[in-house]
Amino acid sequence: MTAWIDRRALDLFAIEHPLLLAPMAGSGGSALAIAVARAGGLGAIPCASLSLDTIDAEVRTFRAAAPGSRINLNFFAHTPVSPTDDMTRRWLDRLAPYFAEFCVDVATLPKAGGRAPFDAAMCSLVSDLRPEVVSFHFGLPDDVLLDRVKATGAIVIASATTVAEGRWLQDRGCDAVIAQGYEAGGHRGNFLTDDMATQPGSIALVPQMVDALTVPVIAAGGIVDGRAMAAGLCLGASAVQLGTAFLLADEATSVTSHRNALRTARDDNTAVTNVLTGRPARGVVNRIMRELGVLSTDPLPFPLAGGPLTPLRAATEPDGLGDFQPLWSGQSGALAREAGAAQIVADVVEQAARLLRL
Amino acid sequence: MTAWIDRRALDLFAIEHPLLLAPMAGSGGSALAIAVARAGGLGAIPCASLSLDTIDAEVRTFRAAAPGSRINLNFFAHTPVSPTDDMTRRWLDRLAPYFAEFCVDVATLPKAGGRAPFDAAMCSLVSDLRPEVVSFHFGLPDDVLLDRVKATGAIVIASATTVAEGRWLQDRGCDAVIAQGYEAGGHRGNFLTDDMATQPGSIALVPQMVDALTVPVIAAGGIVDGRAMAAGLCLGASAVQLGTAFLLADEATSVTSHRNALRTARDDNTAVTNVLTGRPARGVVNRIMRELGVLSTDPLPFPLAGGPLTPLRAATEPDGLGDFQPLWSGQSGALAREAGAAQIVADVVEQAARLLRL
Repeated sequence: MTAWIDRRALDLFAIEHPLLLAPMAGSGGSALAIAVARAGGLGAIPCASLSLDTIDAEVRTFRAAAPGSRINLNFFAHTPVSPTDDMTRRWLDRLAPYFAEFCVDVATLPKAGGRAPFDAAMCSLVSDLRPEVVSFHFGLPDDVLLDRVKATGAIVIASATTVAEGRWLQDRGCDAVIAQGYEAGGHRGNFLTDDMATQPGSIALVPQMVDALTVPVIAAGGIVDGRAMAAGLCLGASAVQLGTAFLLADEATSVTSHRNALRTARDDNTAVTNVLTGRPARGVVNRIMRELGVLSTDPLPFPLAGGPLTPLRAATEPDGLGDFQPLWSGQSGALAREAGAAQIVADVVEQAARLLRL
Repeated sequence: MTAWIDRRALDLFAIEHPLLLAPMAGSGGSALAIAVARAGGLGAIPCASLSLDTIDAEVRTFRAAAPGSRINLNFFAHTPVSPTDDMTRRWLDRLAPYFAEFCVDVATLPKAGGRAPFDAAMCSLVSDLRPEVVSFHFGLPDDVLLDRVKATGAIVIASATTVAEGRWLQDRGCDAVIAQGYEAGGHRGNFLTDDMATQPGSIALVPQMVDALTVPVIAAGGIVDGRAMAAGLCLGASAVQLGTAFLLADEATSVTSHRNALRTARDDNTAVTNVLTGRPARGVVNRIMRELGVLSTDPLPFPLAGGPLTPLRAATEPDGLGDFQPLWSGQSGALAREAGAAQIVADVVEQAARLLRL
């Protein structure tokens, strides 16, 4: 067994290796969580776009297949914004050329479904299911809900994109903080700032976060192989969180167009965009990002911007195109492997341990 | 003596530790280069804004004080652009409110001086001085000049901000490539792309560069202490290049307003901007960046955008304000120390070696 030097995250999560699976809506469910947990890491279930029944079923599936392993249930903590008619009109106007191109009837556009913030019903489910770890993205829920979660005995962790956000999370009782570097795929967890121009990369963020906090720091962003895992631990992180590394795993549920895009991923073809969901998130640059500009003032607030894209996505996705859909990936997508998740964990961990001479 | 595992950069540069001083115009001259070289790293002289006579004098000073040490002379390789009257008018119009505020007579504005690209005269100086290492930023000079440099026996290295740029440099004969992550302070070395939205951070760029190239890769960007140095080596770099780490060193020539800004540096208060010189460069966010937006289509081409800022800088800098001047810093400026450069090298190297269990 590898003698990892910093045992804080290992003890907190009761894991063999300091490696967490990033919760990835649409790409990772119980199967991926089970594989990572069995391989000695911490599994996660992304719950923000799941129904309560599905969350319940996913947890039961996980516990049956990985008995004794802790599970991390991930929720969003954004504050929903009701758009004005002007905001809606501006976004639909911006998309009008696409609706014309794909013969979409604007009268039939869906609202953005899913991606609800953590609420009382989800909190009750947490009380029932008693997940050992609950994680939040986009800040934390209000004090009443947070207190209820903590009263279940759950370890609470959350993402910070700056040291200021990390301090905020620690001050509110987080047991560990995920330092999400700018390289990370998917939604940025930012909640105290909207300024993408000043977001720090992992090699800068992690050591400054470690210096500022007393709780363990989990490095995330751009970590796909053992070299980057070792780097994250050298930077002072107690563990690393990997998402992109598992997007092409056998157990991942990434759709074909997403997998196709990942196979073309390069160091320099992803960007942080808000045109797909209304919040900044990193993915492989696709047609809508290129044509609207990656960061725009026109999209509806999260998650509503994605609703009107649904028919455009439906019209293009069957051809394997990802022109109008999120192709979430970090900046190291080119290093993601097509293999079983347990093998990915084993290889990443082995390479990191070797580089650290453990 | 520390037994560094990868000896390629050590042998190439004849150095004891895999640590290069980043060339920093305005902040580092022969004194800093001497201190770093004596401490076992590779010293550098930033030549792009120096006269031929000054370069000659700096090299002589270095060689007298650090006999036997190799020296890296750094030049810019940009293609100068002659602005149209429209371009000039647009930039001056944009700055007009500041000229009014500080009573600047537009008729007396200076052209941007200095920062000339590598040319025949500099090449002749290289032939005379025979620096062991010549480095370029913004690509490489034309083949004729590059061949003359290589004919002197100099090791040629250059900066790449993407894997594509790294391949381009290797194909043209570079002996090593500096992988400049997005965290880096000062000018981005980008030359095949202008797209700042897709520039990768160090933890993603370095391993992908290492996989793509056969020449040694030098990690740069966000590396200020031994944790990040160890991280860079874990990522596969043969050496690291540090700039921001030395901006507050005793031997640095950073002006007072620059030092003041560095003392306020945080993980999240720098940005890449083109409003100070016309090319993207990272610095602490100041008034002009905030008010014009960090990336703008209005500035004159590099380096001319900086000319009209000179009187604004002159009006504010004496008060210790950095409102209109470059406050170059990487994203780890908060970790920069006020100490002698030799001590900084020793501490960084010792910490890195300890983390790597060497």
